[in-house]
Amino acid sequence: MPKIYIISPSGAVRDRQVFQKGVKLLKSLGHDVELDPDVLSRHQRFAGDDDARLASLTRACESDSDVVLTSRGGYGLTRLLPDLPFSKIKKSIQRGTRFVGFSDFTAFQLSVLTKTQQVTWSGPSVMDDLALEKPDEIALACLNDVLESQSEGTGWRMGSKAYRAFLSESDTNSAKKTVLAKDAVLWGGNLSVLCSLLGTPFFPDIKGGVLFLEDLAEHPYRIERMLLQLLYSGVMNQQKAIVLGQFTHYKLTPHDRGFDLNAVISFLRSQTRVPIITDLPFGHVALKVCLPVGKRVSLVRDERDLYLLWPHEHVHAHALASSHH
Amino acid sequence: MPKIYIISPSGAVRDRQVFQKGVKLLKSLGHDVELDPDVLSRHQRFAGDDDARLASLTRACESDSDVVLTSRGGYGLTRLLPDLPFSKIKKSIQRGTRFVGFSDFTAFQLSVLTKTQQVTWSGPSVMDDLALEKPDEIALACLNDVLESQSEGTGWRMGSKAYRAFLSESDTNSAKKTVLAKDAVLWGGNLSVLCSLLGTPFFPDIKGGVLFLEDLAEHPYRIERMLLQLLYSGVMNQQKAIVLGQFTHYKLTPHDRGFDLNAVISFLRSQTRVPIITDLPFGHVALKVCLPVGKRVSLVRDERDLYLLWPHEHVHAHALASSHH
Repeated sequence: MPKIYIISPSGAVRDRQVFQKGVKLLKSLGHDVELDPDVLSRHQRFAGDDDARLASLTRACESDSDVVLTSRGGYGLTRLLPDLPFSKIKKSIQRGTRFVGFSDFTAFQLSVLTKTQQVTWSGPSVMDDLALEKPDEIALACLNDVLESQSEGTGWRMGSKAYRAFLSESDTNSAKKTVLAKDAVLWGGNLSVLCSLLGTPFFPDIKGGVLFLEDLAEHPYRIERMLLQLLYSGVMNQQKAIVLGQFTHYKLTPHDRGFDLNAVISFLRSQTRVPIITDLPFGHVALKVCLPVGKRVSLVRDERDLYLLWPHEHVHAHALASSHH
Repeated sequence: MPKIYIISPSGAVRDRQVFQKGVKLLKSLGHDVELDPDVLSRHQRFAGDDDARLASLTRACESDSDVVLTSRGGYGLTRLLPDLPFSKIKKSIQRGTRFVGFSDFTAFQLSVLTKTQQVTWSGPSVMDDLALEKPDEIALACLNDVLESQSEGTGWRMGSKAYRAFLSESDTNSAKKTVLAKDAVLWGGNLSVLCSLLGTPFFPDIKGGVLFLEDLAEHPYRIERMLLQLLYSGVMNQQKAIVLGQFTHYKLTPHDRGFDLNAVISFLRSQTRVPIITDLPFGHVALKVCLPVGKRVSLVRDERDLYLLWPHEHVHAHALASSHH
């Protein structure tokens, strides 16, 4: 059966019962779940001090698991970046381990991509997704595909209002089927975390890629400021497409007077010819697909429908041996 | 009498009465105050649309004023950066106009420094400082020095707890008098705005400088993430000193468990040999000194006391002609 190893590389787990609920779900799905000894550790706001969290990442690399999951995000990986065990991480991924996480985990994923060119997965965490009262079935199915090495793409439909805005604001024809990107590196994650790596040696240099972004509790003016940083730095215009996921938990005020996320997207579209697609089911929301950061993908639009496709993952001997399939 | 021209390059003025109170104070101090025609304009959350705010900056350049003040910060300059009238701004500063502001204005100041190598001033805004129930007297005196071209430095004392932390955490001896920087470019401003320019053509390349920073309503973990971005990008270690102003209006939670701003500063000091000084009276606080961004300064420490000194400003013929001094 697929083996899952769970670590806490960022914030401390506050509610152990909630955490155990997520673990229980994974076990009930027939997975072999191993918890890192420091998964419930605490130091200040972190899940253990920096050395403890680094050691847990090394143990995850040596766990010979199919999938490494995080308990949750928060903040903490940024502190560890210069000391990440990149060569162990690389070997572990090459042996077939898929690292899965999101939010603060973006710092890990982009650093690993930059330093090792290996693929990691943007996807659920135990606390945010698996411990929900009613975990999203599509999210679980997507995670299961990663567990079984069966993940090969995702599709979604832009909302009708978002689609009308896309057509009127983009330099596009509405032709039935458009290949927006082919053999393009998929990358991205949390916008704040991604921007906090700009200018550092942990920011990948991706040209002709597909960049996906999400964020939590950032007012649209801050989302715009970050997107403008990506524009001005040249990162945005080097991509084949920008794919916006879910931007949630922010609060508009009466003083915004119509300045909202749609106004931000509309303004950005006036500043770049790179297509900006919206409505990707990814972010701090229950319906969250799994996305391979660093993998080459195709992005196809068929009217309102989007398809992000990647080659069927090679099933490693190791994964075969440890799974029922 | 000194002429002051007031613009709104960022957020809209919400309370006109408060704004007028600040204007009244300036007039009562004997200054000739001119308001830009768009100073009270509104477009969404901005003080007029982008074209209107750009036009107001051009008018400020052509106003032949001693000082250009902003009504307030907010957000909005980032959108204007590629279109700023840099050559007009440069000529205006060379003719003797001092641009004064802070917070969002940092984007203007750093862009102007990068593109024109001209000095602008970090200092009060009308709404944040001059319209206060009881404007801070030292802040007013500092602003007056800029108005009169008499500004030549500032001094402050580190708190005793901060000083003890500095001594124990820094690679320093406590020798009575230490010159931390000499002939070093002073630069900085709002940490979030500064970091949002990293990697863009609007971020100045300053080596051997003195970098001052402040921020508003950013949790210490976010302050740390931004400071780490400056560290990892190489910016921090290229400076002679980092000078932290006031970081205010954030809220710690019980889950932080001792992770606070002091923990952040302590961690940063463990990661760099560049001295990190604290307690600069600058930020989103009433007691706010004026700092010349782009000017060459000396930074001297005498036990707990800090002195930031710059050459007495050249008094331009134009300034002489329009002032009583």
